[in-house]
Amino acid sequence: MKIIGIRDEKNQYFQGILEKDYVRVLNPEGEVLKELPREKIVWDVPRKPTKIVAVGLNYRRHAEEMNMPIPEEPVIFLKPPSALLPHLGTIVWTPQSKQIDYEAELAIVIGKETKNVSVKEARACILGFTAFNDVTARDLQRKDGQWTRAKSFDTFAPLGPVIDTQWWPESSTAIRLYKNGKICQDDVLGTMIFSVEELVSFISRVMTLYPGDVIATGTPSGIGPMQGGDRVSVEIEGLEPLVNTMGKPLSF
Amino acid sequence: MKIIGIRDEKNQYFQGILEKDYVRVLNPEGEVLKELPREKIVWDVPRKPTKIVAVGLNYRRHAEEMNMPIPEEPVIFLKPPSALLPHLGTIVWTPQSKQIDYEAELAIVIGKETKNVSVKEARACILGFTAFNDVTARDLQRKDGQWTRAKSFDTFAPLGPVIDTQWWPESSTAIRLYKNGKICQDDVLGTMIFSVEELVSFISRVMTLYPGDVIATGTPSGIGPMQGGDRVSVEIEGLEPLVNTMGKPLSF
Repeated sequence: MKIIGIRDEKNQYFQGILEKDYVRVLNPEGEVLKELPREKIVWDVPRKPTKIVAVGLNYRRHAEEMNMPIPEEPVIFLKPPSALLPHLGTIVWTPQSKQIDYEAELAIVIGKETKNVSVKEARACILGFTAFNDVTARDLQRKDGQWTRAKSFDTFAPLGPVIDTQWWPESSTAIRLYKNGKICQDDVLGTMIFSVEELVSFISRVMTLYPGDVIATGTPSGIGPMQGGDRVSVEIEGLEPLVNTMGKPLSF
Repeated sequence: MKIIGIRDEKNQYFQGILEKDYVRVLNPEGEVLKELPREKIVWDVPRKPTKIVAVGLNYRRHAEEMNMPIPEEPVIFLKPPSALLPHLGTIVWTPQSKQIDYEAELAIVIGKETKNVSVKEARACILGFTAFNDVTARDLQRKDGQWTRAKSFDTFAPLGPVIDTQWWPESSTAIRLYKNGKICQDDVLGTMIFSVEELVSFISRVMTLYPGDVIATGTPSGIGPMQGGDRVSVEIEGLEPLVNTMGKPLSF
């Protein structure tokens, strides 16, 4: 099943199921309200998480490019739900930063209340997978030490467009980021240090995860800055690509 | 007005208004459902925030005791809503830590959608104030570098018991933490490095704040560990004290 989120003419949020060339729009009870052709969709995030847990340095070559040791345990941080941005949305350039980087990531979406689960039990707690861009103000990340401000600006958490409940990561599955059509990040999920099941288990031993909660599993090497007008696409083999545009620098 | 949260016999959450010796229980529309004597209350958190933003090192002497420089800008981090714990609740001792510390804090509760506000505009965005305990696994904080895991365990965010909408912090307002009746933290709000208005303004330039969102404003010096069975009370002059018990070490 391919779960999406949309906005109607009145800017109301609905979930939907994506079929080959149309969408079944659902009411909150899960009943079909209507069908829409795919090209008429106004995209929103496919779920509204109560929290977004993200993982730092989960690919070997990315830890190397950041001059950081390979972690023995996952390093976790949080991004606020207020930072979420749908597919095709514009990333807002905060005047607090001179360097805003893309970070292509695989996102896990949780399917049920999950607490203290083992690595074996973790798979059954996962609803599906989607794409994520862990947008980061790199200069503020360096300055603050703590990563929260650098990663928490509104629009710094593009998510979606589709939660695929049938897809599962393989060692050879490609994860790539394209900027204006040029490949910038290019790796396979098999080089992740901690697997998706290990991450769900580890995080569930810290905090209870709720249906819809998102775990962003870390980014491979090749991170870099965006300029105003750049079009970035997170492409994970077998999942729908997540495309966003970088806005021009703002002042307020 | 003194806003509280309670649970009924069916474990359902309601908000209420605390009067001298009774509580007016409200339905989600804000209408009075019934009145309850105060001693019959089963406490819950006074609001359910979409996020908890916390501030590190916001008291001069605490920065000194942590051997950290006085920050030029607030250092922010997030605690997940899944960590919330009501007044009188028990803090769960995760087996991942050997040292779990209390941190008495003043909490700001946001009253309306707040984005890019000035220091002057900030006051009108605040619904009221309550007490907070920024419970921290000190050993994990040191080990991880990032503070998220150390501060995000379930029950590590005691909040409440009452949001006071009339109260306002003064320079001379005392903030204290008592452990088993013995005073451990003892300072005044006037020694905060960044004021509540400065914090609201600063954070609103990073992320949109929503009604009920909580800003924990940092802890004064005197932090220290809790042992199983300890009773800790965050007492801010003029606000209701927030009392919690430390649980015994668990293993799972």
